[in-house]
Order: sequence, then structure tokens, then C-alpha cells
Amino acid sequence: MRMSRMIIPTLREVPAEAEIPSHKLMLRAGMIRKLSSGIYNYMPFGLRTIKKIEDIVREEISNFGGQEILCSALLPSELWKESERWDKMGSEMFRLNDRNEREFCLGPTHEEVFTDLVRSEIKSYKQLPMNLFQIQTKYRDERRPRFGLMRCKEFIMKDAYSFDVDEDGLNESYNDMYQAYQNIFERCSLDCSPVEADSGAMGGSGSAEFMVKSEVGEDEVVFCKSCGYAANVEKAPTVAEILDKEEMKDLEEIETPEVKTIGDLEKFFNTSAKKFGKTLIYYADGKSVAVVIRGDREANEVKIKNAIGGAVDFELAPLHIIKEVTGAEVGFAGPIGIKTDVVLVDLEIVELSNFITGANKTGYHIANANYGRDFEGVVGDFRKIENGEQCPKCGEEIEIARGVEVGHIFKLGTKYSESMGANYIDKDGKEKPILMGCYGIGIGRTMAAIIEQHHDEDGIKWPLALAPYEAVVVPVNVKKEEHMNAAEEIYNKLKEMGVEVLLDDRNERAGVKFKDSELIGIPMRITVGKNITDGMIEFKLRNQPEKELVSVEDVYDKIRDEYKKANMFIK
Amino acid sequence: MRMSRMIIPTLREVPAEAEIPSHKLMLRAGMIRKLSSGIYNYMPFGLRTIKKIEDIVREEISNFGGQEILCSALLPSELWKESERWDKMGSEMFRLNDRNEREFCLGPTHEEVFTDLVRSEIKSYKQLPMNLFQIQTKYRDERRPRFGLMRCKEFIMKDAYSFDVDEDGLNESYNDMYQAYQNIFERCSLDCSPVEADSGAMGGSGSAEFMVKSEVGEDEVVFCKSCGYAANVEKAPTVAEILDKEEMKDLEEIETPEVKTIGDLEKFFNTSAKKFGKTLIYYADGKSVAVVIRGDREANEVKIKNAIGGAVDFELAPLHIIKEVTGAEVGFAGPIGIKTDVVLVDLEIVELSNFITGANKTGYHIANANYGRDFEGVVGDFRKIENGEQCPKCGEEIEIARGVEVGHIFKLGTKYSESMGANYIDKDGKEKPILMGCYGIGIGRTMAAIIEQHHDEDGIKWPLALAPYEAVVVPVNVKKEEHMNAAEEIYNKLKEMGVEVLLDDRNERAGVKFKDSELIGIPMRITVGKNITDGMIEFKLRNQPEKELVSVEDVYDKIRDEYKKANMFIK
Repeated sequence: MRMSRMIIPTLREVPAEAEIPSHKLMLRAGMIRKLSSGIYNYMPFGLRTIKKIEDIVREEISNFGGQEILCSALLPSELWKESERWDKMGSEMFRLNDRNEREFCLGPTHEEVFTDLVRSEIKSYKQLPMNLFQIQTKYRDERRPRFGLMRCKEFIMKDAYSFDVDEDGLNESYNDMYQAYQNIFERCSLDCSPVEADSGAMGGSGSAEFMVKSEVGEDEVVFCKSCGYAANVEKAPTVAEILDKEEMKDLEEIETPEVKTIGDLEKFFNTSAKKFGKTLIYYADGKSVAVVIRGDREANEVKIKNAIGGAVDFELAPLHIIKEVTGAEVGFAGPIGIKTDVVLVDLEIVELSNFITGANKTGYHIANANYGRDFEGVVGDFRKIENGEQCPKCGEEIEIARGVEVGHIFKLGTKYSESMGANYIDKDGKEKPILMGCYGIGIGRTMAAIIEQHHDEDGIKWPLALAPYEAVVVPVNVKKEEHMNAAEEIYNKLKEMGVEVLLDDRNERAGVKFKDSELIGIPMRITVGKNITDGMIEFKLRNQPEKELVSVEDVYDKIRDEYKKANMFIK
Repeated sequence: MRMSRMIIPTLREVPAEAEIPSHKLMLRAGMIRKLSSGIYNYMPFGLRTIKKIEDIVREEISNFGGQEILCSALLPSELWKESERWDKMGSEMFRLNDRNEREFCLGPTHEEVFTDLVRSEIKSYKQLPMNLFQIQTKYRDERRPRFGLMRCKEFIMKDAYSFDVDEDGLNESYNDMYQAYQNIFERCSLDCSPVEADSGAMGGSGSAEFMVKSEVGEDEVVFCKSCGYAANVEKAPTVAEILDKEEMKDLEEIETPEVKTIGDLEKFFNTSAKKFGKTLIYYADGKSVAVVIRGDREANEVKIKNAIGGAVDFELAPLHIIKEVTGAEVGFAGPIGIKTDVVLVDLEIVELSNFITGANKTGYHIANANYGRDFEGVVGDFRKIENGEQCPKCGEEIEIARGVEVGHIFKLGTKYSESMGANYIDKDGKEKPILMGCYGIGIGRTMAAIIEQHHDEDGIKWPLALAPYEAVVVPVNVKKEEHMNAAEEIYNKLKEMGVEVLLDDRNERAGVKFKDSELIGIPMRITVGKNITDGMIEFKLRNQPEKELVSVEDVYDKIRDEYKKANMFIK
């Protein structure tokens, strides 16, 4: 492609709207343009790389028997009511009516549609297992769209769904996708780890997230260097810290007029936050939930939600609810005598002797509280794991790092097949629900993650297999015939070889062209300048600092070598 | 691909919901499945052909310098308000609000988005001309979705937009796309004619529709065998028929108590419908419009709308308006003394002497009406052309046929660039509006049109370049080792050659497999049966009735020949 005829909207300035490298570079390299908050247009360079990622995904999922289909984005509410997710999806789902006032949504995910397809096409165990997938546009009305393609309202996703006769089959399908995902992210040159994840609102048992370690990631991931354990902090179980046991003392009410926060309490009682029992009050679908954790710990809302069987509306309780269940102003809640519908007690609270907690009375705390004697509740793991804690698997120290979730695989089990009646007839003639799995990859987010891991201060450093164009031929001065003629010749020869090549025939200074090609991240640059009179050109790889003077005849083999190294075919 | 592992939802029965061959066959061949009225899922066979059509379109548009981008479907209302189409699009546009009550629509077309992109990226004449296109999903809330992929609520479209400095440039861009479209539809094996079309709500001057002649088409197209003229009936100008001129007689009011329709009048006055002036009353955006045409003619609402400068709400006037402007019951409207805001008079009425028309008085008609003496109005062409009328170009007899519109190209001119401020700086330093063209192809509708032109009673007859799979190897009995082994060998060899081949390894009777392969429309079938012991197989082309007994060695060259005939490459 001749660059003089292309729309190449590169920017010298860093756009104010962008905070993270991938977002800045995609804007600066002219790969995307924002249309509205969380809504982007893909420009030619962006779309080309998107399509390469899609092709890698398509190939690897197909290799494991996946069959590609394409479902609509506009989905009738009936299906979502059958699975009981029409209400559960809350305000993250875009809803609309057609001219006849029929309700639709824009699909944020497609479990219902695939389950519906399969229930009408699959009758017998003979037709299973099956894996169907699509690469399609999804919609989520994000509260805070951000970081460019990392979190959008409209985004391209690969979603696959597996259908099996039994648990063994589901496990096999799940493991196949696990392997396919590892292949995909490896081919995308991503340093990516599968981690245990919570299955959350998707339902089902067992799931893994594919996490790209990145400072800009929105997720926190627990890693154990010792045993290799990896999990989302939302999911990672905690091991209760056992402090010295004391003999139980009598409860004591203490006046603590202006003492409300854990910090205040530490000062007032002159003791560590570990000696306090902190009581948080949530409001979940109309029910009040008290959660008691140690004063130095953080609550894990995912674990709390799971413990109460899920909730559509889940938030810290409003003031009037707090007053109602404690009978006191905010800051004095405690587990003893609290009137919430549910009381959840963290494992560490059970291990704690004679702790201090709110008295459910304005201006008072209670000392020497003890679980069992003074209050009871549902005991479990309700807190977030912290850096340096024990690994839940091997007991060694864990580490917490930030990550970007690029893929997620779930075992759904029979959640959808049961609610929507997707059954098959087994060998024994009995009707049974199909076992399902679902498997997603964010295509745009994967592109962003690749840029996060492959860039420098000058721009993107595309791996050869993902670059929008693989090579650029730069005539230093388009007005000099000898530059242009040689450049054209090399350009045509490379096109013939099958190289995806640009000819930068714009009437610009060489410096501008170099800057653009580095910003866009073209892996190979062939510069045709004054040395062409000796039959020499300059060859430069984007990921190497050195330039090399090479004869025109030798450059083609040099280029072939790069394809060989990348395991790619070229003529 | 092994068919035993595929979802092949073929149907023996003709689905009740389908009326036309393409719709029936796409359902029966398992290419699509309906999700909701006008909303379909593409199954594997359907999607594969869709992608082949997309690739042909992509290649031909790129050959003329088109650059592919991808815009969002979710579009903010602001852009549509700038172009003043937010209200004009009416109830055909899906509208929705996000969680912050911001208004969005689902793009029914993308002029606004592309104009917005270009106004922020294009500054100078040096960057022009430019052609940007996308293959993307569109949304229209059709009043009556029908005929499968012919008229949907959600559909895939290629839309291209050209940007030029002047009329000459626009004409060149338009002609390029005209040529690209002819190439595309030829490669799609479609018998397709470009016809003059009305530019309607898209605005601008000059447009052509690419029409596939088909009995099931929703459009009527005028063709002239003599000079090659072709136009949509909506657009085709009419030539006024000149009847014998008479001397003007005096107006005469005649009591016609129960005479309301043209049929009634013909009987009552014992004369031809040609002697009547029929007055239709429309209501357009709050204005009343009377249209006078000859009694035997049909009104052309597109021409009428254009004559009044367009209208969002346009319909035959409700009763109370008719009574208000005529002062009479329905059935007695006439041009003399009518109180509509506008009176449109068809050319033939001007030519008509002493005609009969309504008296604007219940129970009365007027005889001997004459344009000029008795009434005036805006004279023009407001009627539909009829079969057998004179060609507006050469005067010979025209023919009207039904057609399916698969593509449409428009010269938009400066309609959008002026309303949205998409300007460039010309050589002389002056700011000027960019001239635009827009160019659409319905991908799914093209697939449907191909099936309309390529099928028989047994199923689809895909041209090789468009078939979901190009060949199928059918072992007659999968339980016979010699059948399966030979079939596998041929299957693998064909895969190696690059043939897109199926192995029908399902445990079904050969008859079932043959029926499926004919229904799906696989161009080449290789059957491995009892003759394999002599090294012979049966070779059959879908578009030929004969089968042929061929040796296994010879079949590969036979297959290569088919690719050669189709101008396709194979190893």
C-alpha cells in the first residue's frame, strides 16, 4: 500500500484523554479513534491487527473442533427471562424496545442464544460433544469505560460454548479450551498466566482467567512462586492467622464518644488493629448483611456475595439501614445483638480472643468479645488475601501483582441447560441436561495487552505475526528519481514475495517517516537513500537498536530470515 | 471437516415461515436460524459463504483504493442531530439510552460517522481523494421484516464513502465504485443490472441501484430492451400520453350520489378512466397536498415526496383532513377550489380536455374541467410508469420486471459535509466542503439473491467460489473398512491440495448424504462405494445431472479442471 493514498492519522502529541501506554499509542499510531465514551472506531492499522488476532483465535479454536457461527447482537428479552438473567443483569445491559414495544437487549454475552440454538438442534448423545464459537460484537453499559480498548461499551469478543453429555466430557472440553487459550496467547506473544477465578454471575463451577501481568491491569492476581499457584484475589482462599489464645474475659462496655474509625480505635485503646472486630453492613437485594472481619483486613465482596447466594443489587448499606439494624449512629456497629438478616463471620474472628468491637450503641464499644459465647453467625472466608500471606496451596509466601484479564473460561455445568430445557437423550433412552462450558477472549483487550507488553518510548513494537504491515520501504527523498525507482522496485518485489509492505511515498522528511514507522511499530524498515548509488540500502528492525547497511540483493534473504524466526511462511 | 462432528441442521420439511426459495433453502440447508422476527443467526455453512462474499467485496473495493475501517454500531445522537437526521429517520431507527440517559441509536447507515471521522482527519486537498469502507452490522426497525435475509432488522452491510475535492473527483470515485460493483456481482455469479434510482432520504444527486431480476424481488424495475435504459419505477420519468384535444366546454355540476370510485364513475358516465382526473390527498409533516392524476394512473409517492422537498411523516390524509380541505365526504375531491396547502398536477392532466373530476361537494362531480381555465397548481411528473409505456430515453416500449436491490451507489455531494462542517483547504487556500459519495452492498441479501438465481428443486447450486465447502467425499457405508479407508485417503489428499472439503463420515444411508449434499449445494461430490475394489469412484457435479465413474488417480485432475474453469487457484 502506498502511504500517500492512506489515512494515517498519527499524532505527535499524547492525547489528554489517554492514561495508559496502549491507549496512548493506539491513538497516536492512528489505530483507533474515539467516537463516544467507551466507543471506538478502528482505523485501517487497528483493524488489520484486530483481524490477525481474530484469525489466530479462529484457527486455534477450530483446531480443537470449534465450529464458527455468528449470532445477532440484538436479542429478544424472552430468552433472558427464561434464564432469569433479564433482571439480574442490571444496568450493565443495554435495553431497548422495537416499534411494537417488544423488549430487546444488546447481548453482553450469549449463553442464552447458544443454549437456545442447541436445544432446538441437539436431540441425541450421538450429536455430542460439540463446540460452537463466534467472533462478534458485545455491548456492556459500563459505569466507567476507561483505558481505551481495555474497558469499552462496544467491543469484539470471541465466545465459545461447549456442550457435553457428562462431567468427564465437560472437563475434556474445558481442558481443550485451556490448551487452545495457551496456544493463542503464546502466538500473540503475550506473557500470560491462567489463574483460578471466581465464576460469579456466570454461574457454574470452576473457571480460570488468563491474566497478562501489567501495571495498568485492573485485576489483582495472587501468585505463589513456590508452587505456581495463581488466582484472582477475588477467588484466592485465605488462611486464618492464629494469634495467641487468651482466656475469655467478661464483656465490658466502654464509652468511646468520638472514636469511629479503626485508626481512632488503635489510638484510643493503644493496641493493634488485629485486636478489633470490624463490622461492615451490606444491603443485598433488600436484605441486610453484617460481615465481621479483623480490623486490619479488607472485605472480599465477591466471597460475601457468593456466601449469600448472589445478589443483583449489592452495596454498602445506606445510613438509615445501618441505624435500623444497629440502633446507633455509623461507627458503632458490632456483631453482638445486631439485627441484620444475615451475620457473616470471618474465620479469623473465630480465632480471635477478647476482641474489641462496636456496641450497637452510639458512643460505645465493647471489649472482650468472643465468638460463640457472645454471638454467632455463618463462619467462612470473607476477606481479601494480602501480599505476603500464606499460599493456600503450599503455605509459602504469596505475591500480589496487577493483571489484565484477556480470556476467561468457565464450567457452566447445567445452569443454562436446566433453566432453558436444553436436554439430550442418552444411550439409555433417558432425557438429561447438556453440560455446558463457556469461553471468552476480548479481542480488542488482547490487542491492548500486547501493546502494553511490546512498546518503548518511540511507539509500538509489533511482533511480526501481528503487525498491521510487516515492512515499510522508505525512500529518503521522493523527489529524487533514483530513490523512488529503487524503492518502488524493492516494494514490488516484496509484494510479490507475499510481504505485507508499505511504501512511504509521502512527500515528507525522512525523519517524519522514521518516527511514524516506529510509532506504528512496523517490524522491518528498508530505507533507500544516498547509498543506493552503490546498490546499498539501510535495513532496520523495530525491536533492535542497530541499523545495517545491506546490498539490495541481500535484503530479501534478510527479510526471509525474519519470517523463519517467527515461524511464518513467505515465498 | 468431518461431518460427524459438525452441526448440520438440515431440514427435510419446508419451514412454514418461509415464502421464497432463498429463505426456504437457507433454513433447510441449515445456513441460518431465526432468533426473532427479522433477526437471524448464521450457522457454519451460512457464515462460510457470507465470509466468501465479504472477501470478494473487500478485494474489489480495495482494488479501487478503498481502505477498510470498522465503526461502532452504537452511535451517539449528537452526530445525527448535527445532520438533522435524528428526527427524520423516524421509527425505522432503533433508539436507546445509556445508564446516564444519553441518547444513542443503532446505526442504520453511517454517513454521519464517516463525515465526522474525515472532518477531524482531513485538512488539505493533498489528502484527497479518499475512499473508506467497512463491512459491519446495521440495524433497521423494519415495519415488516420478511423473506429471510432479504429484509432484516439486523444485517451485514458493506458501506463505502468517498471524499473528493470537486464534482469531477466525485464522478470519478462514483464511476470507480460503479465498476467495482459490476466486478463484485459478476464474481458472485449474479445476473445484475445497474438501474437509475431515486436518491430519496440519503440526499444528493445521482444514484444507481444494482438490481438482480427475480420474481421475488420487492422492487419494480423499468427496462428498455431497445436502448438498454433501466431504472427503478420510483425513479423512471413518464412521458405524458396525448389524447385527442377537444374544444373547452362549460363546467357542469352533475349529481353522482353513490358514485365514488373510478370504477363507479366509468359505469355512471359510460366512459374510460382516462377521461377522469383523480385527486389524492396526502398529509405530509402537517401539510395537506392534493395530487391530480388521470383516473387510470397510479400515483408515485417518491416523486410526490421529492416535489414537496421531502417529508418525514407522509401518508394518505386522514378523513378529517379530507373533509376539511374538500368540504365534502370522501370520494368527491377535485382540484377546483380545493383548500390544500399544495396542489400537484400531473403532466397528463394538463394535456386532458374536458375531464370529469370531483366537485368538492358530497354527491357531486364536475364535467368539462380544464387545467389553466378552471384550476392551477405545480405541474410535474407524479405518476408511476406502466408496463408497455414509452421509454423516457428512446420512446420504445418499456418492460417492468421485479428485482432485488443488492447494491446502491449515491452521489451525496455536500449534503453532509456542509451540515457537519467537513471542509478542506484547497490549493488556493480557501476552505471548501468535501464532496461525498456513499456506496452500499447488503451482504446477506446478496447471498439470498445468489440462491434465488442458483437453485433447483433439490437445493442450492453454489458456484465454486461461493460454496461453504467446495467438495464432499461420501463413503457409501462407513462400516465398510475399504470405503472408509479410501474416502479418508481422498479426503486427506484433497485437503492437502487446498480444497475446502467435507468427509461425510456420518453413519447414515448414502441417500441421506446425497440429499444433504445437494440441498447444501456442494459443487463436487466424490462417492466411494463398491467400485472402489477396482479403484473407481463416482464423481458428480452439483450443476450437472450426470455422474461419472472415474479412477481414483484421475479424480484429482478432474477437480483441478473445475478450479481452472472458475479461475480459482489450487495446488
